[in-house]
Amino acid sequence: MQRYFTDEELTAGAVYTSGADTHHMKNVMRFKPGQEFHMVDNTRTAFLCEVTETDDHVHYRVVSEVEESPELPVRTSIFCPLLKGEKFEWMIQKSTELGASDFHIFEADRSIVKLDGKKRAKRLERYNKVIREAGEQSRRNMIPHINFGKSLENTDFGAFDAVVFAYEGNAGNPAAGLEHVLETIRVGDSIAIVFGPEGGFSDNEAALMERFHSVRLGPRILRAETAPLYALSAISHQFEQPASD
Amino acid sequence: MQRYFTDEELTAGAVYTSGADTHHMKNVMRFKPGQEFHMVDNTRTAFLCEVTETDDHVHYRVVSEVEESPELPVRTSIFCPLLKGEKFEWMIQKSTELGASDFHIFEADRSIVKLDGKKRAKRLERYNKVIREAGEQSRRNMIPHINFGKSLENTDFGAFDAVVFAYEGNAGNPAAGLEHVLETIRVGDSIAIVFGPEGGFSDNEAALMERFHSVRLGPRILRAETAPLYALSAISHQFEQPASD
Repeated sequence: MQRYFTDEELTAGAVYTSGADTHHMKNVMRFKPGQEFHMVDNTRTAFLCEVTETDDHVHYRVVSEVEESPELPVRTSIFCPLLKGEKFEWMIQKSTELGASDFHIFEADRSIVKLDGKKRAKRLERYNKVIREAGEQSRRNMIPHINFGKSLENTDFGAFDAVVFAYEGNAGNPAAGLEHVLETIRVGDSIAIVFGPEGGFSDNEAALMERFHSVRLGPRILRAETAPLYALSAISHQFEQPASD
Repeated sequence: MQRYFTDEELTAGAVYTSGADTHHMKNVMRFKPGQEFHMVDNTRTAFLCEVTETDDHVHYRVVSEVEESPELPVRTSIFCPLLKGEKFEWMIQKSTELGASDFHIFEADRSIVKLDGKKRAKRLERYNKVIREAGEQSRRNMIPHINFGKSLENTDFGAFDAVVFAYEGNAGNPAAGLEHVLETIRVGDSIAIVFGPEGGFSDNEAALMERFHSVRLGPRILRAETAPLYALSAISHQFEQPASD
C-alpha cells in the first residue's frame, strides 16, 4: 500500500487535494478514481484514503484511520557485547518484543564471551531465529537485523541522530538521566544506544565515548541484559503516548 | 558501611537514640563515638550518621542524606501468575532490579503452572533467594517480599491508590495507554499492576477486573515475563526524572 505524508491535519470523511505528491501519484503510480493509499498526517496518524477524481491534481477522500504502527517512532539500534550463557538470547528476544530496530555486536574490553569467524555465522543463525520468532509474536512490522560489527573505536556513529552511552558510572548522578537525551529527539529520528558487558565499561571505553551522551538508566544498577529493556521501554513511554484528547 | 532501618523520619543535623538496633550496634559492631553508619528512615531515605555517645543506647547525629534513593517513588506491587520454566525467576529477578515493591502470586484461569501447599514453601525459598541477590546487586534499599496470594476475585485491592489491569485485549487501543493512569498518580502513591499468564486473561477475569484501570503496555504484544519490566521501566521514566533545572 503506497504511503504518503502530508503537513495537513486530516479528518475522516473530508476531501483533500494532493500537493507535493501530485507527480508521484499521477505519473508514477498513475492513480485513478477508486485507488486506495495511505496518507500520514501531521499528527502522525495514518489514514486510508481513496481517490475521488484526478485533474491537474489528485483529489482524495479520507476513509478512516489505519491501525497504528507497532514500530517505535524512534528507530533504536542496540550496540551490545555478547553476554554469557542464555542472557544474550533473552536480551535480544525481549528487546525485539520491545521494538529494537537492530542489533550490532561489538567486543568490549571486559567482554567475557568472544567469538571468532566460523562460530559467529552459526551463532547469528540462532540469534536470527530468536529475533524472527519474537518479532512475529509481538506483531512487529519489521524483523530486526543482527550482525557482528566493528570495534567501538572503529564504528561510524555518524548516521544516527543521537548516540547514547549507557554507562554504569553514571548511576549516582541524577543529572545524567536518559530523559534529557530523549527530550532532544524527535519522532522519526534514529538513536544508537551502546551497552556494556557484565563487568561494565573500561576507563578507555568511557573516554572513547565521552563525545556522546553518557547516561544512566534510572537510579538502580541494572544487569547487562536488563539495561536495553529499560531503555526501549522508556523510549516507548516517551514517544508512544497518544495525542492528547 | 553498616546499614540499619528505622521507623522514624530522620532530619539532617538532628540527634537520635538507637532502638531495636542497640544490641547490634553496641555488642556486635561495638560502635564508639565518631563511628559512621547508614540509617534508612521511614521515608526510605538513607542517611549518613555518626555516633555521638554510647550509654545503654547508642546516640547518633544525622550528618547528611546519602545518595538518592534507589527505590521507585511510586510503590509498585506486581500481581502475577506463575510462569512456565525459568521465566518466572527471570521476571522477578529483573523486576527487582527495576524497583518492584513486592510480588503476589495468584492462580489465573489460564495458568499453565499450578503449585500446592508443600511445593509452594520450597518454591518461595528459591524465589526469595533470587530476589535478595538481585536486590543487593542493584543496591535496593529494601528487599521485595513475595507470597502466594488469594485468587483475583478474593484479593482486596483497597489498599492501593491505583490498580492497573495489564490486559492484552487492549493492544490495539491507543486510548488505553498506561501513561493515562500514571498521569493521575503522585509520588508516594502505591500502585498494583495485575499481569496475566502466557495464555492471557480469560473473559471472566477481564470482566472481574473491569472496575480497575485496564491498560495496554505500548502497541506491541509483550510476553508475560516481559510485561512487568515494561511497566516498571515506564514508571521509573515517568517519576524518576530529576527536577527541571
